Amino acid sequence: MNQQTFAIGVDIGGTTTKSGVVNHRGEIILEGGILPTAKYTTAESFVEALSQALMPAMEKVGVDNIRGIGVGAPNGNYYRGTVEHAPNLPWRGVVPLAQMITERFELPCSLTNDANAAAVGEGMYGAARGMKDFIVLTLGTGVGSGIVAGGGLVYGYDGFAGELGHTIVRRGRKHWSTGLDGSLEAYTSATGIALTARVLLDTWVGPSQLRGYRGEEITSKLVCECALQGDELAQKVFQFTGEVLGEALANFVMFSSPEAIILFGGVIKAGDLLMQPTRKHMEKNLLPIFQGKVKLLFSELKEADAAILGASALVWERKEEKLKIEALPVLK
Amino acid sequence: MNQQTFAIGVDIGGTTTKSGVVNHRGEIILEGGILPTAKYTTAESFVEALSQALMPAMEKVGVDNIRGIGVGAPNGNYYRGTVEHAPNLPWRGVVPLAQMITERFELPCSLTNDANAAAVGEGMYGAARGMKDFIVLTLGTGVGSGIVAGGGLVYGYDGFAGELGHTIVRRGRKHWSTGLDGSLEAYTSATGIALTARVLLDTWVGPSQLRGYRGEEITSKLVCECALQGDELAQKVFQFTGEVLGEALANFVMFSSPEAIILFGGVIKAGDLLMQPTRKHMEKNLLPIFQGKVKLLFSELKEADAAILGASALVWERKEEKLKIEALPVLK
Repeated sequence: MNQQTFAIGVDIGGTTTKSGVVNHRGEIILEGGILPTAKYTTAESFVEALSQALMPAMEKVGVDNIRGIGVGAPNGNYYRGTVEHAPNLPWRGVVPLAQMITERFELPCSLTNDANAAAVGEGMYGAARGMKDFIVLTLGTGVGSGIVAGGGLVYGYDGFAGELGHTIVRRGRKHWSTGLDGSLEAYTSATGIALTARVLLDTWVGPSQLRGYRGEEITSKLVCECALQGDELAQKVFQFTGEVLGEALANFVMFSSPEAIILFGGVIKAGDLLMQPTRKHMEKNLLPIFQGKVKLLFSELKEADAAILGASALVWERKEEKLKIEALPVLK
Repeated sequence: MNQQTFAIGVDIGGTTTKSGVVNHRGEIILEGGILPTAKYTTAESFVEALSQALMPAMEKVGVDNIRGIGVGAPNGNYYRGTVEHAPNLPWRGVVPLAQMITERFELPCSLTNDANAAAVGEGMYGAARGMKDFIVLTLGTGVGSGIVAGGGLVYGYDGFAGELGHTIVRRGRKHWSTGLDGSLEAYTSATGIALTARVLLDTWVGPSQLRGYRGEEITSKLVCECALQGDELAQKVFQFTGEVLGEALANFVMFSSPEAIILFGGVIKAGDLLMQPTRKHMEKNLLPIFQGKVKLLFSELKEADAAILGASALVWERKEEKLKIEALPVLK
């Protein structure tokens, strides 16, 4: 292991936390095991468990060869190194997690939100390799996003930029948690897709495999499986989802004019059933100057890996000279 | 004049082109006269006229003291220095305007679109002074926008980012020129506001000064004057406009999390009649983490000045070292 240096990447999710030791080529060479995030009722006990879980891997590569720790977490704030009011985590209020990790591990720690970490991972090792302008949209239990413009992540004034899942795209469906009427997440998250299936089933007269299930048994995963087996109603669910998603993507394109939009998360297992209507409705809502230009891609990275790799990439970015963004005029 | 250096700023509009010689403090010290853009059927004749118009001012400060020319133009592409398919200009296709100006003036020329120039002007000399994350929205005949994130203008992959006027915000109104259904411009441009007035007038039973005018006589300017004089229907037009605008602004905030949004253009003469409903509906559609944080401001610059100053600022940016965007991790 000698001269090589490594970074640790940590992906904190509401259910589980995954971590790994990553080398310069973007390979996860050792894993840090899986922690049940929700079990740790205090951030202190979580950091302690994380340290125990990672110690064997860290000792294997040599603690002195590790340059730092990068963390992706829901509601993670890059500027402040905090996790703030994350609804899906057990820790309330504002948690200074980067500082706590630095103190426990005696290593520098950078933290960002999970979708931003996935975007960095896609940019360095995935479908967006070599691109300076792209958007990663994570379609999971919720809908998250990471926006890269001119080679850098867009953080915004307070570090919370890229909440595209909460942009309003079509009125008529209230979000179960935020209360916002018509947000993208209400339609295109796994939860939203299951809801669409239940709504469509109510007025569907033809046959459908979904009829055999009770309301709460109808999940996005089930709808996806039925759709892939040719169930007409289940396919309609993805057509509708793609229509709403495509409309939203058109707006995003007119905002930041990305080279590509990368879709990520469990929902993309629907494949072409989702991609085809999404692309169609995106193109339909674009100005001509954007039409036919934007690549719509599925992530190439394994789901957990992207966030671990992206989080670990935050470590190298601390060390290396920042890229010169030649094309961007910059204000004083 | 001796040691001082200067930049020329040019603001090309569909109707008129204005220009000026600008010093380092952002003062327009000499004006280049007003050219009737539409009269010049070829870009060559326009560049020649621009040179004639600017020559007296350039000689007064000394041609050798001028460091370059910055141009803001509709559909201006910063990457390529071109004006591309601008519907409101007499020149068809792709015009290599920056190169033509460089050859005629023997000075370096940078070019961007007019809304981006206004954003640079606001950032250097206007309401966004010192801000690194803001959006300028120009509400005029059309709706343009310039987005600044992390201290730099967002240009996107092909240089056409920031077409916020064409994002879809509320279905049910087809844009007269793009054909898109429900774009922001269809509601909040001067043209859109006049249209809203005519639509509301159709079903309005109370008294209104606007009744005295025929359809095409009802302009955004007239609606604004009537509203400021207390006309109830005219005020409702701005309430509705503010509602649609506020919804769109909420989406923009969740995209790039700006410190401020600066409204610019003729429509802002309506003042609080527009600002109050806009702010209310923006806040109403925001996630709690953004609420009460974003400054909604009117431009402080004179309309023509902002674009001239912003265009001239492109010249200094060529010369000076780019700002280090410390807070932004940057991808390789």
